[in-house]
Amino acid sequence: MKRILLSHGSGGKAMHSLINELIRDKFNNEILNELTDSAVLSLTDERRLCFTTDSYVVNPIFFPGGDIGKLAVFGTINDLSVMGAKPLYLSCSLIIEEGLDYDILDKITTSIAEAGRKTNVQIVTGDIKVVGKGGADKLFINTAGIGALGEGVNISMDNIEIGDRVLINGTIGEHGIAVMSAREEFETDTESDCAPLWDLISKVLPIGGIKFMRDPTRGGLSTVLNEITEDRDFGIRLFEKNIPIDDEVSAFCEILGFDPLYVANEGKVVIIVSPETAPSVLKEMKNQALGEKASVIGEVTGENKGKVILETIAGGKRIIDMLVGTQLPRIC
Amino acid sequence: MKRILLSHGSGGKAMHSLINELIRDKFNNEILNELTDSAVLSLTDERRLCFTTDSYVVNPIFFPGGDIGKLAVFGTINDLSVMGAKPLYLSCSLIIEEGLDYDILDKITTSIAEAGRKTNVQIVTGDIKVVGKGGADKLFINTAGIGALGEGVNISMDNIEIGDRVLINGTIGEHGIAVMSAREEFETDTESDCAPLWDLISKVLPIGGIKFMRDPTRGGLSTVLNEITEDRDFGIRLFEKNIPIDDEVSAFCEILGFDPLYVANEGKVVIIVSPETAPSVLKEMKNQALGEKASVIGEVTGENKGKVILETIAGGKRIIDMLVGTQLPRIC
Repeated sequence: MKRILLSHGSGGKAMHSLINELIRDKFNNEILNELTDSAVLSLTDERRLCFTTDSYVVNPIFFPGGDIGKLAVFGTINDLSVMGAKPLYLSCSLIIEEGLDYDILDKITTSIAEAGRKTNVQIVTGDIKVVGKGGADKLFINTAGIGALGEGVNISMDNIEIGDRVLINGTIGEHGIAVMSAREEFETDTESDCAPLWDLISKVLPIGGIKFMRDPTRGGLSTVLNEITEDRDFGIRLFEKNIPIDDEVSAFCEILGFDPLYVANEGKVVIIVSPETAPSVLKEMKNQALGEKASVIGEVTGENKGKVILETIAGGKRIIDMLVGTQLPRIC
Repeated sequence: MKRILLSHGSGGKAMHSLINELIRDKFNNEILNELTDSAVLSLTDERRLCFTTDSYVVNPIFFPGGDIGKLAVFGTINDLSVMGAKPLYLSCSLIIEEGLDYDILDKITTSIAEAGRKTNVQIVTGDIKVVGKGGADKLFINTAGIGALGEGVNISMDNIEIGDRVLINGTIGEHGIAVMSAREEFETDTESDCAPLWDLISKVLPIGGIKFMRDPTRGGLSTVLNEITEDRDFGIRLFEKNIPIDDEVSAFCEILGFDPLYVANEGKVVIIVSPETAPSVLKEMKNQALGEKASVIGEVTGENKGKVILETIAGGKRIIDMLVGTQLPRIC
């Protein structure tokens, strides 16, 4: 078996071969092929850009429905998308543990390349570091992304008003359960929802009335909603009966003692939208592949300022707090 | 002692406190303070941007003359600078090992903030991941950077012509020796040359005739020169007597069996410049704090195509190859 050696990260010959074999041919684009210290981007009309970064440390690196490479591309694309920015360029930096099976790295870089192609996003610059055995756990990936903000696009928590509706594009908790199942080796049909959100978002954005969007990844839906209400003059009322959740995810959460509201998603977006355009936005979401199960799950209220209140199916009410402690480490 | 826990990376309350305590106040700028998924950058005239990334895994994280935080800021700034781009914005992503001393993280984020302020570069977006004990070695940092390319700036290997001069701004090998001394706990006065190169580069760039620049980090001077000559119709002749090297670095290299030509630098730039403007460029470099010991160390030749030939002080000639294997892992 061919393994990654420290010399693959030394800046010398081995690293050059590795880049040619596993990166350059796969990520193939004119900007990257220059292999300069920075990628040169020529912009035409864009005056406002979005810039984001995330490191991915998911364990295990392969899980039902995805792998760390796909996650690293789609995750960063989604962070641009929820700002209303069209994803254009990514950087990709690998931290590899010495001794990693070369074929595994090959699979991951193939997955990164495919995810980039699928979304028309170019990976234009990167870096490879190799650390000694035990210095890292297999593979960590950082991606940073640049996206273009269209004229007039303004996604901000400051836009949110009492009466706005809270929408989500589908079932929650699948990514968390899929990663958990791979880690603990229990049987499930649940796959990660890992997917790029720009297609869906680019369709609903022109409808208007969209105040704020965020992808509920680590910390799940509850944490995002708490980030939205924190220190604000409004609260959020959440309708449990409207929150889409797959039966199997629901069952596993019960067995494992997880609250699905805190379980990570990687292909979901929470959209806060004006009551006037909420019906059209919902309708358009349902037309999209990633929005078939879209739902209005809540509304912004003048009561319970700063809090998220869940109206349960049983008819009760409870405060949904931000995640305290850690539910599932290394989920993304 | 306060330590980093897995919950600091969970996306929940602990992570929010950590961001407020160690990041937001220090990196303080309007763009970052929004704490949105992506930073929004408003550009005025820049139509061409540079985009780069590097992950930093240096071991140990503190070394004479610097630390992993300073290195992560200056290193990425330098990758933009050698393209001739004015560094504008950085992202910063931390991968932290569970149990890391909170005070150490505090020192590093302070160092990052200071390095940003010193260079007028804003850190506008970021991410924190915490992995379980043993899942990473203390702390890894990724920075990605965006810089603006001025009109007409064109730094490319394709510009290089026979007769061009090879310049460097000072003594080589200090970063490698400083890190090595910290790792092996041997006594030395040598400090890392870790420094931001944009000030110097912005002064010499307007002189004209600058064909190509690169910072000789991992793999050292030899590797950069080999990258330049690889598959080209020219070679490089290097004059050993003109290569600036500190006596102590030279002595340590001899003791440790290192060739200083392969030892890493973090505040050096190799500049390929036309013979006509080389004297003015050298003069201006010497005026700069980071260029006092600048020197013309070689020239581009029609002979020895694709090769780097060192003319030794003793009068001999030898081929300087790209680094094979690994000399010093985790140097940056």
